[in-house]
Amino acid sequence: MLQVWALPGIGEISPGDDLADVIGDAVSGFAASEPSSAPRDGDILVVTSKVVSKAEGRMLRADDREDAITAETVRVVATRPGPNGGVTRIVQNRLGIVSAAAGVDASNTPDGTVLLLPEDPDASARVLAERLRQRFGVDLGVIVTDTLGRAWRDGQTDHAIGAAGVHVFEDLRGGTDAEGRPLVVTLPCVADELAAAGDLVKGKAARLPVAVVRGRGDLVGPLELPGARSIVRSLDRDMFRLGTDEAYAEGFAAGRAAGADESAGS
Amino acid sequence: MLQVWALPGIGEISPGDDLADVIGDAVSGFAASEPSSAPRDGDILVVTSKVVSKAEGRMLRADDREDAITAETVRVVATRPGPNGGVTRIVQNRLGIVSAAAGVDASNTPDGTVLLLPEDPDASARVLAERLRQRFGVDLGVIVTDTLGRAWRDGQTDHAIGAAGVHVFEDLRGGTDAEGRPLVVTLPCVADELAAAGDLVKGKAARLPVAVVRGRGDLVGPLELPGARSIVRSLDRDMFRLGTDEAYAEGFAAGRAAGADESAGS
Repeated sequence: MLQVWALPGIGEISPGDDLADVIGDAVSGFAASEPSSAPRDGDILVVTSKVVSKAEGRMLRADDREDAITAETVRVVATRPGPNGGVTRIVQNRLGIVSAAAGVDASNTPDGTVLLLPEDPDASARVLAERLRQRFGVDLGVIVTDTLGRAWRDGQTDHAIGAAGVHVFEDLRGGTDAEGRPLVVTLPCVADELAAAGDLVKGKAARLPVAVVRGRGDLVGPLELPGARSIVRSLDRDMFRLGTDEAYAEGFAAGRAAGADESAGS
Repeated sequence: MLQVWALPGIGEISPGDDLADVIGDAVSGFAASEPSSAPRDGDILVVTSKVVSKAEGRMLRADDREDAITAETVRVVATRPGPNGGVTRIVQNRLGIVSAAAGVDASNTPDGTVLLLPEDPDASARVLAERLRQRFGVDLGVIVTDTLGRAWRDGQTDHAIGAAGVHVFEDLRGGTDAEGRPLVVTLPCVADELAAAGDLVKGKAARLPVAVVRGRGDLVGPLELPGARSIVRSLDRDMFRLGTDEAYAEGFAAGRAAGADESAGS
């Protein structure tokens, strides 16, 4: 049985807040009224990146939004016409994550501001996991999440962009299926599935940025486990490293030059 | 509080089995030992497509695997070298789903066979939801899932490929964030998040093809709600309708012809 609940009692987060203290106090406060929610070995905390960013002071004036996207962008993957005559940029950001607007977010932020993703969500998760393990004396894991669009499918789901003390993949590759055959290519990204499960209780509009998942303690391990950065597919194995239109245009330009050369040489 | 559990007591499924009876019997059997698991309004059953396919007799001889992939393919999106000198084809299948090998599956199938996806997973989900609602007299939803790879991220997660009696999107577009600003672009794909949550308890190797999710009864609605087909992004809005290499090659060929023409005409 998996249990997933949203942690009440986390107010607005401001730059400089000690997020481990805030979340720890919320955990203690909820446990006072719901003793069964008191932390146990194997619990996994699913934390919306927005509150991590706010605590880390990753806020900018909204006027600087387009510049902020540019600064966060390592590589433009695709562009398309956006709302109000603007352009939506699908980019790979410095964390390796492909998303619209480099994760620069204008929802649930103070008016006139936008929010960047945490500087290093794996490191942020690590601090939270370490501090909360110390405070409660239990082995728990932490996942930091962001809401991402997907290729080929409409809508968004929450994904893991930071992780500590939890296996991000459930490696079945050495295992066998129920018929005894090796599971050669199956590598469930449990960190993303945990992020998705957490989103089902956190909601977007309410101030419930932290969920607790209980029942997959087998996924919790040492703080040194690889973080969510390891989920990012390397560029040399990425079949969708450019949008279709962008790749076609690059090919067309190269082909046109080649065609002209060939024709001139013939 | 969200509760997610795997339904015990579902044995091997064979062609012609009445899956609504099999699942219904498993629900009743589990409720006999765990009364709190007895169906309630708002429960959502998350069913692995594999058992739907088996009941529908969607099995083929493994020798026919490549032909089966071709038959299920509407459009090749990308190809890459696969294991054993073969080619892995990322294709859009007749259900609109982009995946490796058109969802033709050789794991957890009887030796020497492969399994196609259900003929119409939304219709299969509808039959299950209708029959189980009748049997238990509660309003429940059904999601049929498949394990899919993703662009840009390693590993796989479970996604909804069929749905009935459940909202596949949580439409917040008319809503506001905690600061009172409109949530203009957020459209959480809750069906995919429910599929992911279900996978966390079903596991891949065990014979646990059905999970029950309790605690999001607000997502359960009439049987006539749009199915999982509505999650598929339409081709005209799909920025990744071709792999990067494939789009580049198409552009190159067109550019080369244009370059030769221009050169000849100059």
